[in-house]
Amino acid sequence: MPVKFRKMFGLGNDFIVIDARQDSKLSAAAEPRRATALTDRKTGIGCDQLIILEACEDAMCRMRIINADGSEVGACGNATRCIGGLLFQEKPDAPEATIRTKAGLLRCFKCEDPDMITVDMGEPGLKWEQVPVSKEVDTLHCKEACEGPGLTDCACCSMGNPHATFFVDDCEKVPLQEIGHDLEHHAFFPERCNVSVVTVSKDKKSIRMRVWERGTGITLACGTGACATAVNAIRRGYVGKAENYTTEVKMDGGSLVITYAPPGSGGEKEGHVLMTGRFDTAFTGEIPDSLWG
Amino acid sequence: MPVKFRKMFGLGNDFIVIDARQDSKLSAAAEPRRATALTDRKTGIGCDQLIILEACEDAMCRMRIINADGSEVGACGNATRCIGGLLFQEKPDAPEATIRTKAGLLRCFKCEDPDMITVDMGEPGLKWEQVPVSKEVDTLHCKEACEGPGLTDCACCSMGNPHATFFVDDCEKVPLQEIGHDLEHHAFFPERCNVSVVTVSKDKKSIRMRVWERGTGITLACGTGACATAVNAIRRGYVGKAENYTTEVKMDGGSLVITYAPPGSGGEKEGHVLMTGRFDTAFTGEIPDSLWG
Repeated sequence: MPVKFRKMFGLGNDFIVIDARQDSKLSAAAEPRRATALTDRKTGIGCDQLIILEACEDAMCRMRIINADGSEVGACGNATRCIGGLLFQEKPDAPEATIRTKAGLLRCFKCEDPDMITVDMGEPGLKWEQVPVSKEVDTLHCKEACEGPGLTDCACCSMGNPHATFFVDDCEKVPLQEIGHDLEHHAFFPERCNVSVVTVSKDKKSIRMRVWERGTGITLACGTGACATAVNAIRRGYVGKAENYTTEVKMDGGSLVITYAPPGSGGEKEGHVLMTGRFDTAFTGEIPDSLWG
Repeated sequence: MPVKFRKMFGLGNDFIVIDARQDSKLSAAAEPRRATALTDRKTGIGCDQLIILEACEDAMCRMRIINADGSEVGACGNATRCIGGLLFQEKPDAPEATIRTKAGLLRCFKCEDPDMITVDMGEPGLKWEQVPVSKEVDTLHCKEACEGPGLTDCACCSMGNPHATFFVDDCEKVPLQEIGHDLEHHAFFPERCNVSVVTVSKDKKSIRMRVWERGTGITLACGTGACATAVNAIRRGYVGKAENYTTEVKMDGGSLVITYAPPGSGGEKEGHVLMTGRFDTAFTGEIPDSLWG
């Protein structure tokens, strides 16, 4: 029996989804030689990461995210939207879709637009030791890591991974390719960091963001980076107050809508970050024995 | 009904194959917006070219080769092997598989190895006006276009497209990236040319080849380039005499075995170029309505 798969994508990421919930043997797709064969864009199916869905007692599924070399990724907002969307296609009347990941239990919610989904990304880490940064500071205003023209201070938080957000007048003019590496590796960030340079729109309803991802460099979009940027912009009062703590973050690869009602604000799911965006299926297919081998 | 497809590859090229023989409406895959959507490696299925098989009176199928922008390619050796292999999988007992293309009728033959196939690429154009080059010369020895270190003369022929073969002591050392563009655009080649730099092995049984493709630059492999290289090497007597006019051409993306028995030699299908190499299916799948639109 050939193994069925689904090719999905969200913003800049694409995934091969293999459903091992009914047949645990299919989890063998994660073996390094299979992962390498399947992810190859010429000779295999081609994708950034494999997603394997497994049966799980306390959630609708367990989601594993596998790189081309077989290594496992802890969390991925784009993958979570894809799988949340898939679970609602299976159970349209479910109040929420729950996904168990290495990073914890994630909850997804339906949107009016059936191509969109909202993921509860949990609470951001706002304390200096949670980000982490190397000394006790107010994470909303850190001058320590400013090394580029026009950068005055950054705001930091953790979305499971460390983020630094630099608010500037025009983020298109920041030479991110030149300064990204040094900011990522600055001694202020003991676990390095993801760097966003962002500009709030004049009407304060959206944020333009460019991102340098830790270990990767400039990418088209970063889900946790968009969350961190919105959290920091809302904490600083730059956006969101008149919009129910909601703002749109516009990246090169597409947009995400982020809601973050700070604790005590009385907003929706206060203290939690809600990420809303598209998920898409490109096509479905069958893996031949030659690739499964 | 979702449209079924097959993803195939040969040497450095990969293809989405859509079978419109029973349903001519599926030829609509060639429409530019569909071709663009299907060939996208993130949001579509992803490939170098679409191949559409159509019903044909005087051959087992007509093969159309479509670029991402909807433009049509005249011929492609890698695609021909894939489709020839597919036709033999359908009719294992056929004496030959015939494929109608813009470049004429192509005949394919089975090999002992079921993953390999032989394509009769027809007769090479050996006259100066067939290549074409800009003046009446012996195409076996042209000194006109030599512009790189260690290049003394080249041999030219047409395989439906113009090729120049430079025989050198060590083709790995030729700065092809630097000189390829000027050779392609040399006034000696009024329709420009594909450039190969090649070295015959010491045992005279194989040829190492690096290729600069017209309009593209350095590529991993070129089917017609491998044919031209073998034709020119056999014409010069460098290889093939003791091997039934057969030689292996080793490119970065893989190898092809080429047979060229010159007219009057008494060899197999004399005067014709026979190309033998692998073809592979990566996977099969279904195109969703969203990509077909």
